[in-house]
Amino acid sequence: MTLEEKLAQLVGYWSDQTTDAVAPMSGEMAPPASFEEAIEHGIGHLTRVYGTFPVEPLERARWLWEQQRRLVTGTRLGIPAIVHEEVLTGLAAWKAATFPTPLAWGAAFDPELVERMGAAIGRSMRELGIHQGLAPVLDVIRDPRWGRVDECIAEDPYVVGTIGTAYVRGLQQEGVHATLKHFVGYSASQAGRNHAPTHIGPRELADVFLPPFEMAIRDGGARSVMNSYAEIDGVPVAAASELLTGLLRDTWGFDGVVVSDYFAVAFLESMHGIAADRGEAAQLALDAGIDVELPSGDAYLAPLAARVRSGQVPEELIDRSVLRVLSQKEDLGLFDATFDDPPERIDLDDAEHRQIARRLAEQSVILLSNDGSLPIEGARRIALIGPNADSAESLMGCYSFANHVLAHHPGTEFGFAIPTVREGLEQRFPSSQLLVSRGCEVEGDDRDGIGAAVGTARSAEVAIVVVGDRAGLFGRGTVGEGNDADSLELPGVQRELVEAVIATGTPTVVVLLTGRPYALGWLLDGSHPAAAVLQAFFPGEEGGTALAAILAGDVNPSGRLPVSLPRSAGAQPFSYLHPILGGPSDITSADSTPVRPFGFGLGYTTFAHEALEVAEQVPTTGSFVVRVRVRNTGRCPGADVVQLYARDTAASVTRPVAQLVGYERVALEPGEEAILAFDVPTSRLAFTGRALRRIVEPGDIELWVGPSSAVKETVARTELVGAVHEVDSSEDRIVAVRVESVARPTPAA
Amino acid sequence: MTLEEKLAQLVGYWSDQTTDAVAPMSGEMAPPASFEEAIEHGIGHLTRVYGTFPVEPLERARWLWEQQRRLVTGTRLGIPAIVHEEVLTGLAAWKAATFPTPLAWGAAFDPELVERMGAAIGRSMRELGIHQGLAPVLDVIRDPRWGRVDECIAEDPYVVGTIGTAYVRGLQQEGVHATLKHFVGYSASQAGRNHAPTHIGPRELADVFLPPFEMAIRDGGARSVMNSYAEIDGVPVAAASELLTGLLRDTWGFDGVVVSDYFAVAFLESMHGIAADRGEAAQLALDAGIDVELPSGDAYLAPLAARVRSGQVPEELIDRSVLRVLSQKEDLGLFDATFDDPPERIDLDDAEHRQIARRLAEQSVILLSNDGSLPIEGARRIALIGPNADSAESLMGCYSFANHVLAHHPGTEFGFAIPTVREGLEQRFPSSQLLVSRGCEVEGDDRDGIGAAVGTARSAEVAIVVVGDRAGLFGRGTVGEGNDADSLELPGVQRELVEAVIATGTPTVVVLLTGRPYALGWLLDGSHPAAAVLQAFFPGEEGGTALAAILAGDVNPSGRLPVSLPRSAGAQPFSYLHPILGGPSDITSADSTPVRPFGFGLGYTTFAHEALEVAEQVPTTGSFVVRVRVRNTGRCPGADVVQLYARDTAASVTRPVAQLVGYERVALEPGEEAILAFDVPTSRLAFTGRALRRIVEPGDIELWVGPSSAVKETVARTELVGAVHEVDSSEDRIVAVRVESVARPTPAA
Repeated sequence: MTLEEKLAQLVGYWSDQTTDAVAPMSGEMAPPASFEEAIEHGIGHLTRVYGTFPVEPLERARWLWEQQRRLVTGTRLGIPAIVHEEVLTGLAAWKAATFPTPLAWGAAFDPELVERMGAAIGRSMRELGIHQGLAPVLDVIRDPRWGRVDECIAEDPYVVGTIGTAYVRGLQQEGVHATLKHFVGYSASQAGRNHAPTHIGPRELADVFLPPFEMAIRDGGARSVMNSYAEIDGVPVAAASELLTGLLRDTWGFDGVVVSDYFAVAFLESMHGIAADRGEAAQLALDAGIDVELPSGDAYLAPLAARVRSGQVPEELIDRSVLRVLSQKEDLGLFDATFDDPPERIDLDDAEHRQIARRLAEQSVILLSNDGSLPIEGARRIALIGPNADSAESLMGCYSFANHVLAHHPGTEFGFAIPTVREGLEQRFPSSQLLVSRGCEVEGDDRDGIGAAVGTARSAEVAIVVVGDRAGLFGRGTVGEGNDADSLELPGVQRELVEAVIATGTPTVVVLLTGRPYALGWLLDGSHPAAAVLQAFFPGEEGGTALAAILAGDVNPSGRLPVSLPRSAGAQPFSYLHPILGGPSDITSADSTPVRPFGFGLGYTTFAHEALEVAEQVPTTGSFVVRVRVRNTGRCPGADVVQLYARDTAASVTRPVAQLVGYERVALEPGEEAILAFDVPTSRLAFTGRALRRIVEPGDIELWVGPSSAVKETVARTELVGAVHEVDSSEDRIVAVRVESVARPTPAA
Repeated sequence: MTLEEKLAQLVGYWSDQTTDAVAPMSGEMAPPASFEEAIEHGIGHLTRVYGTFPVEPLERARWLWEQQRRLVTGTRLGIPAIVHEEVLTGLAAWKAATFPTPLAWGAAFDPELVERMGAAIGRSMRELGIHQGLAPVLDVIRDPRWGRVDECIAEDPYVVGTIGTAYVRGLQQEGVHATLKHFVGYSASQAGRNHAPTHIGPRELADVFLPPFEMAIRDGGARSVMNSYAEIDGVPVAAASELLTGLLRDTWGFDGVVVSDYFAVAFLESMHGIAADRGEAAQLALDAGIDVELPSGDAYLAPLAARVRSGQVPEELIDRSVLRVLSQKEDLGLFDATFDDPPERIDLDDAEHRQIARRLAEQSVILLSNDGSLPIEGARRIALIGPNADSAESLMGCYSFANHVLAHHPGTEFGFAIPTVREGLEQRFPSSQLLVSRGCEVEGDDRDGIGAAVGTARSAEVAIVVVGDRAGLFGRGTVGEGNDADSLELPGVQRELVEAVIATGTPTVVVLLTGRPYALGWLLDGSHPAAAVLQAFFPGEEGGTALAAILAGDVNPSGRLPVSLPRSAGAQPFSYLHPILGGPSDITSADSTPVRPFGFGLGYTTFAHEALEVAEQVPTTGSFVVRVRVRNTGRCPGADVVQLYARDTAASVTRPVAQLVGYERVALEPGEEAILAFDVPTSRLAFTGRALRRIVEPGDIELWVGPSSAVKETVARTELVGAVHEVDSSEDRIVAVRVESVARPTPAA
């Protein structure tokens, strides 16, 4: 291979990279070459073939097959391109299913269902000739001010790791590749400001940020990793060989391909100031272990070629990455592909997609409060108020095709059904009168509609107010990439709208469609709280119908908070995974207590957790069993997310006062009870010790199960005994949960 | 020495440790033994002999001399105690001078004056038989939400280091010892919550938090260091031998004594959970390098003795610390002291104290805005409004005797003069009519007085509104230790008061007496800004007179912001010392731009900075000269703080977009100009490189002088040439500034 042929394999080509609309930094880069020029020496990736403009998927697929044939027949080496696309909430292609946003996956606590979703997405990718999906996002949430929180799964690394791994498994079982991102540390940016520096020490990095990636690689077999834009303690990850090569490959054994986040190589010069020019940026990134520059070859083409020719970059470094890319192409079967079989029909939103989307939406909605007003039964006049009540966009996350691409093409139809909350309610309550009043917009300070909304509420038996976010990117919308916040109040005048409706005295149910948790103390615990509050993180194409089913009581809400409900923006950052002094104490007047804790969620039924059992002593190696009894103590069927927490009461470094060890979703009929057995590898209690090794220490462990991280409903203690055990990355790290028995005991006489 | 005699030397005795009033955790510890029991085997320290209750200093001195004689004559070894006391804003003894709070020292940018203040404090200490002062605080400000910001000097490590070193020099030249605190990382606590975990990587630790300590030890010869309560990346500093011994002693050569912050040893068990009991806590702390447990021997007496007897703690470890304490006592001349000469008269607030306090107060007041209303000339009717207008307490910081001790003894007089702003104005404007109206309190939501204040403002030619903080500790007050904030709005309803007064149309001058910078965008840049704003950080006993002099125009305000004026609580943390992405950018919608930048401050005259000169190339070793011309371009005499900034445009790690390299306070007559020469050791441009060594790299450096960190008024560039230079701790790190010429050029014809 010539140097040009090699470098061509290390870059993407984005024929549509012409505006800042989809990726805001595009404008700073050189405009793309023509397709002919770009593929003269072959090409590594084709960038966002489906996800840049609204193009008819079937037509675009035919075009793509044709271009791939050109690569096969019209270039010297005949190597097809890898086609990559965003797949954050479903495939970012026109008319493709839009699933709930990742934060909703976290709320559902159901890896199996996420795996099915991943498979459905993978199947659509395969049908469209897409080989690599740029998901899942495995950033552990550290600050709700950050705009990309809706792209993340949870604030707990184990939840992120298990659900992220399930997504990887589902996607890759369809023969396409997942991309873990953003490796690593992105979510801890200072004050939640996108791309801002992160202040993370090596222990926190190892114990909080890295585990989801380790799990998705070691347990999920993920084939690609994308770097984070972040700098950690002054070192941009895109130039950190100790992470991209040392840890990822040498320690974890990853043998796939590392791709750059868009423009991240050039950013080493322009945004981080650690390279004097783009050639040095390319050298730093390549040396560190970034194999492929995306979206285009801004640094890896001419600037890198010059450095190779001048002898500054050894060609072996190029070869190392080229071999990885070629190996990936071989894995994907690209060397055998002839591209003479373009698809003839495609349904990117078939019944299975919709059924998964519906179920995940239903499971992810969190009931935050309820004075008995929910479910709504027999109301004849329902006021439906709020800017998100009749909005399809507000059901979808920032990287959904609708909010990401179609937002720039007003008038273009979604191309598939996205029933709004209003439509869901109309269908579910055919005999009720739905009185609709918008009240206000999501953004802005126009209060003119609040009066009418108040009137509407007064004339109804119950009011449903649907408020929250509008997802978008970089200044369009209230949450999403680049849409960071220094306030955690509801955007615009929505709080005023809600307060005005509550003040009417009509029982008011507030439904939040948001991408981040907001400071809702006033709504839940204030002097005039809502009658009931449902929190939905962008629930996707079936969100409207799922919410209607929950409001009606057809479905028991079973979502749990995957993130602490914050007290205020000024109280951030906060994580439930804090040592003693990371929480409220007598030595600070600043209250950090979340309004509702991680793991919290009510339902229309109740559950009791009892009789937690564990051996008095367990060795520091191997695993141990923890049993608990969970019982549906209410009057309707429902699912519980059984949460097992632990605390290491004295360790050689500070440890969290609560750490989720394992969880399991269990459906029970009223009165029914189940015994759950958690097989806990001691590695779940490991941490990075003083010598920066991952160890399990002997000592006392407190365990509990409860309705959230904050409530110790049933408690047990065990002592880890034996020597300090150093944990290896190959050790089991998953808590398997078995339902040992389900019974409906006869009530005592 | 017996084990008991040794351990006795390693602890303090606090005879008054009976309530939580002065130190809030006292109640959790065992009540103190009687003095007789406590000193049976001798004693290392006597704790807060003067600073716990309002005791007449001369009487207390006689008591103290007597107790010391008891130690000399009544114990087997006859070793006197070290007496330590708080000296944060002056000596914490009744009737002792109260100087401006450290944040005001930073605002004055005048190390020489701070050295004089240190000497005055040291002299008072010596007169009272106090050997060790628990100051200066060298924590670099990282988050204004933290309540202890008023105890810190600045957000720039070099300002902290130079001014802190000056304080150490001044204090210690009187034969007493300074204590550097809090070593290290305390100020970076999560969300500004006191004692909360810090997230600091090794590079940030080395480049931001450690330099002031290194300077005060290497350049200032500080004799004692106090640990920080903080945990850094999971390791409490009180147990970190790599810091307390490895860095401090082995690398920096410190050979003094490390004392624990109050209760910090016991906190290793109770607050950090890294010790199973108090004995283990003692062992961890002693092994790490904490020689003396303060305030009392909660862990170092019985619990440690048991561990020595059981063989868990080698007695050599005890001996190591005992030798250090005895060596300190020898340094202090305690082995020769007979204590038969108690003082006969003492003036802790003599003319020199007051003159220094006055000058420091004058130099520390920052003029944030001025539409020409200041100075106030010839106003016959002046409205004086606000809760801090006639409050002596609001002139003083949280560790002042008044706010720290007397607050618990209502009715007790200060014992020395603290003229309020009102008194200062009455004295300075004898022929004006002062119309006083309180308006509201500092805290609480009582708006009843606002109407009257508005009426008062309406009837005056000018209104002066004095608002801000009330310093206190742990829930008493709005700022100070334990008084952290999750909002940076002015406390209580003070903003409403100010807005109401401004709305009258009477020109309104706002004077802020605060301990932290607040979010003042509305006041400075809103639609109804104040006519002028003066920011004073608790200016001490002469604050009222100094402010009157500034308001009248007798003194040109010359303070400069030692900390960024924040945009909002939700935008924190923020530091001016940020790399590109730590500031505002197109990739975040969250604006982090401070309302006024670090280094900002207006005056009644103006200065021009011109003709910055530096060699085109300078070697990476040694030093280089930067010259600048500064000219008083206004109509009145005044002092300027000439600020030289630098930026490393491309380095191997990310570097700040602005870094203060050196500064100098220069007084100039109208039209007068001076040439300043900065001798810059290249070590000022050093940073911690990829290999965690402190290096000066070759490459381009941009230099500028301007009226703040944000304005490049005159710019020059140089190139560092030569090999990468590894900086040693013994190298010069101070930028000497020479005034090469002062002239009053004849204006051109």
